[in-house]
Amino acid sequence: MTGRQLHLNLFVYPGGHHEAAWRHHASDVEHLLDVGHYQDLARRAEAAAFDGVFLADGPALADNVRHASRFRLEPFTLLTAIATATERIGLIGTASTTYFEPYNLARLFASLDHLSKGRAGWNIVTTGAPQAAWNFGLDAHPVHAERYERAGEFLEVVTKLWDSWEDDALVADRKTGLFADTDRIHTIDHEGPRLRVRGPLNIPRTPQGRPVYVQAGSSEDGRAFAAAHAEAVFTAHQTLASGRAFYADLKARVAAAGRNPGHVLVLPGISPFIGSTEAEARALHEEFDELTRPEYSLRQLHRILGLELGEEALDGPVPRELVETGGERGSGSRFQVVLDIIDRERPTVRQLLHRLAGARGHRVVAGTPEQIADRIQEWFDNGAADGFNVMPPWQPGGFDLFADHVVPILRQRGLFRTEYTGTTLRDHYGLPRPDSQYAHRD
Amino acid sequence: MTGRQLHLNLFVYPGGHHEAAWRHHASDVEHLLDVGHYQDLARRAEAAAFDGVFLADGPALADNVRHASRFRLEPFTLLTAIATATERIGLIGTASTTYFEPYNLARLFASLDHLSKGRAGWNIVTTGAPQAAWNFGLDAHPVHAERYERAGEFLEVVTKLWDSWEDDALVADRKTGLFADTDRIHTIDHEGPRLRVRGPLNIPRTPQGRPVYVQAGSSEDGRAFAAAHAEAVFTAHQTLASGRAFYADLKARVAAAGRNPGHVLVLPGISPFIGSTEAEARALHEEFDELTRPEYSLRQLHRILGLELGEEALDGPVPRELVETGGERGSGSRFQVVLDIIDRERPTVRQLLHRLAGARGHRVVAGTPEQIADRIQEWFDNGAADGFNVMPPWQPGGFDLFADHVVPILRQRGLFRTEYTGTTLRDHYGLPRPDSQYAHRD
Repeated sequence: MTGRQLHLNLFVYPGGHHEAAWRHHASDVEHLLDVGHYQDLARRAEAAAFDGVFLADGPALADNVRHASRFRLEPFTLLTAIATATERIGLIGTASTTYFEPYNLARLFASLDHLSKGRAGWNIVTTGAPQAAWNFGLDAHPVHAERYERAGEFLEVVTKLWDSWEDDALVADRKTGLFADTDRIHTIDHEGPRLRVRGPLNIPRTPQGRPVYVQAGSSEDGRAFAAAHAEAVFTAHQTLASGRAFYADLKARVAAAGRNPGHVLVLPGISPFIGSTEAEARALHEEFDELTRPEYSLRQLHRILGLELGEEALDGPVPRELVETGGERGSGSRFQVVLDIIDRERPTVRQLLHRLAGARGHRVVAGTPEQIADRIQEWFDNGAADGFNVMPPWQPGGFDLFADHVVPILRQRGLFRTEYTGTTLRDHYGLPRPDSQYAHRD
Repeated sequence: MTGRQLHLNLFVYPGGHHEAAWRHHASDVEHLLDVGHYQDLARRAEAAAFDGVFLADGPALADNVRHASRFRLEPFTLLTAIATATERIGLIGTASTTYFEPYNLARLFASLDHLSKGRAGWNIVTTGAPQAAWNFGLDAHPVHAERYERAGEFLEVVTKLWDSWEDDALVADRKTGLFADTDRIHTIDHEGPRLRVRGPLNIPRTPQGRPVYVQAGSSEDGRAFAAAHAEAVFTAHQTLASGRAFYADLKARVAAAGRNPGHVLVLPGISPFIGSTEAEARALHEEFDELTRPEYSLRQLHRILGLELGEEALDGPVPRELVETGGERGSGSRFQVVLDIIDRERPTVRQLLHRLAGARGHRVVAGTPEQIADRIQEWFDNGAADGFNVMPPWQPGGFDLFADHVVPILRQRGLFRTEYTGTTLRDHYGLPRPDSQYAHRD
C-alpha cells in the first residue's frame, strides 16, 4: 500500500446524524445512555482501521430536545470508556476554551492520553450556542472575536502545561529515592491578558506529548486559528468547488504561518445513505426525511439563519430577503453553508429543511457503494480533502454499510489502509510528536 | 448474614499510602501511568465485595514530588476506566467546589453515574493546597470560611442540575416523535451570591439520581457541611477516644439538622501492616519507614504544622512551642490530629516523621490479621466507625494481605458481606435514592 492515504474518522452522534434517525426502527435509541452502545460503535470503527472516533459537545441543553436525541454525555468520560474497549483507534473530544478552566482541561486530556496510550485528540471550540453563557454565570455569550482571543491564549497555556514535565522528568529510581527530576519540571508562570496560570501540571508528559489539535470553525477567525495551531480541521462543504476553495485557502494560510501544510489535515463531513442501487439509496434517504417533524426543523433553521417561520411557510420559497447577513450569527461558518444552498438551489422551506435534516449542513450523499467511493475519491484527488469525518445517518447500521461496502472499494483503489501501522492518533494522522518547549533549557 | 454491616472502601493512592512505598521492591511503580494498574486494583477490591474505590485529588503539583509518587491522574477519566473493568464496586472521586465550574462538574458526575450504571460518589472538597489558586488565576487561595460558603452554594446548584430532568423526562417514543418531555425538564434559574446557573443539565437524570455525597473535612466548617449534606464522611483519627468523640458529635449534628443519622456513614482511614506475627508486622512497617527520606518528610511536616526544621533537628523533641496554632492552617482537621500525637506521645522529630509517613496522619496499625480485625471491630462496636477507608501501605500486595486474611475474619464474625446484594453505591451504603426536587410540580 503506497501513495497518499485517506484519513477517516467516525463522527459519533447520539442517535445518528440524521435528525430523525432515532425514530427509525434500525436505531439503537433504547441504549443511548449505555456505555456498551458507544464502545460497540468504536469497536466497529477500529475493525475498519479508522483513524479515530470523534464526539461533538457543548455545555448547554439543545432547545430542540423535545423532538431530537440531543442530550450529551460528557466526552472525557465517554472517550475513556471507549479507550478501554479499543486498542488503536484515536479518541477526539470536543471541549470549550470559553467554558473550561485551562488547568482542568489540561489534566483531563493528559489523563485520557495516558490511559489510552497516546490516542487523544482535542477538537478546540469556543462554543457557538449562546445559552451556554447562562450556565456559567455570564449575562451574555462573549462575542466571536473575544472568544477567539481567549482561545489563543488558552491554547498557549495548556500547551505549556502539557510541556511542563519534560519527557524524562519521571525517574522513579527506587535506589536513590528520586521519584521525579524536578529540574525537568517547569512552572509555566503564564501572565496574560485573560489567564494567569503558574503550573506545572500534576501529570507527567503524555505518550503523544500533547493531544492532536483539531479545529472545526471555518469563519475568518476560525481559519486564522487553524492555520496557526490546528493539526486537523473538520469542515462542512456541500460542493467540490467550495471544498477546494477552503482547502486551498487553509493550506496557503498554514504555509504562510511557516508550518508544514502536510501536517494539517482537512477533513470535511460526509453523511452517506448507501443502497445497492442509487434509487434504493434515495428511497432510504426519503424514509428518514419523512420521520422529521417540521416544528423541530423550523427551530433548527431559526438557530442557523435567524428566520422565524411557521408551518404555513413550508411549501413556499425560502424568504432569502429576511435572512440577516450581518452581525454575530453571520460570522458562523455553518451560516454561509446554508446561505449557499439557498442561493444555488432556490429550495422551498420544506426542501431546505430536508437538506439540513441529514447532517446539519454537512454534505449528505445517497448512492451505491461505488458512487460513494467515487465522490470521496473525487474530493481526495482534487484538492478538497485529506480524508473525511464519516457521519452515519443512523447508528450502528448506517456505519456498517459504509465499513462493509465502501471501505473495501477504497482499499482496492489503494486509498485506505487495511490495518494500522502505528499505535497513536499522531501515527495514524502522520503527524510528528512535538518536543516539550522546555526541553534542554537547563 | 444479619446485623449491622461494615462498609469498606479501598482508598487507592498512586504508589501506595506509605510515602516511601514506591521504593519498595513489592511496589508497582513502573505502572502508575497504566490504566491496567488501577483496573487491577479495583477488580481485587470488587472480588472482596468492597463498597467502593476512592481517589483523592487536587489541582496542583505537590511540592514534594521529587521524592514521592505524587502525580495525580485525573479522577473522572480514571474512575471511568475502572468502571468499565468492574460491575458492582462504587467509584468515589474527589473534586473541588473551589476550582470547578458547577455545570462542568455536574456533567462529569452525571456521565460517570450513567456509564457505571449507578456507582458514582463525590468526595466534596474545597481544596486545601494553597498553590492551587495560582493555577486558576487567583492571587491567593480563598480562606477556609469563604471556600465553605461557595461549597454550600455549589452543592445547591449541582443538586438542582442533577434533579433538572425528572426521572421520566426521557421518553424516546418513536411513534409520536417525542424524544424528551420538556414539561419534565426544568431550568434551575439559580441566582446566588456566588453562582448564577440557568440549566437544565444536558444529560438525563442518572441511575442514582445524584452521586453519593461524601465529605472529608473534620474542621468546624467541615462538620457543619457534613451534617447538612454528606452521606458518608471520611475522617482521620489516631485513637478510639478521638474517633468516638467525632462520631458522636457528627451523628448528633446530623440529627439536629433533621436528617437520619443512619444515612450518614462515618468511615475513618486505616492503613494496615499485616504479618503472621505481630513482630513480623512491625518489622514490615519498619522496612517501609527506613525507605523514607528525611528532607521529604520534613517538608510534609512543614506543610501540616508550619514548622521549618532541618535534618539536625531529627533526633531532638518536636519543638511544640514553635507550632502556630491560630490562623488558617490551624483550622485544618489534619493539623489537630498531628498536634494530638505530639501532645500524647512527645515524640522526637524522627519518630513523628515516621508516624506521618505511614498515611499522612491516618491511623497506621501493624499486627496479625486477627489483631487488625479486632481493632476494626473495636471501633465498629464502640461508636467510632460505620466502616473504614482501607489504605494499603503499598499496592497491590498490601491490599491483598487485607483481602485474603482480614476480610475472611470479618466475615466469620458476621460483620461484612460475602457478596453484593445490590448494584449501586447507594445500595452498598444502604442509602435511599433521592427524588428530584422538581418532580410532580406540574
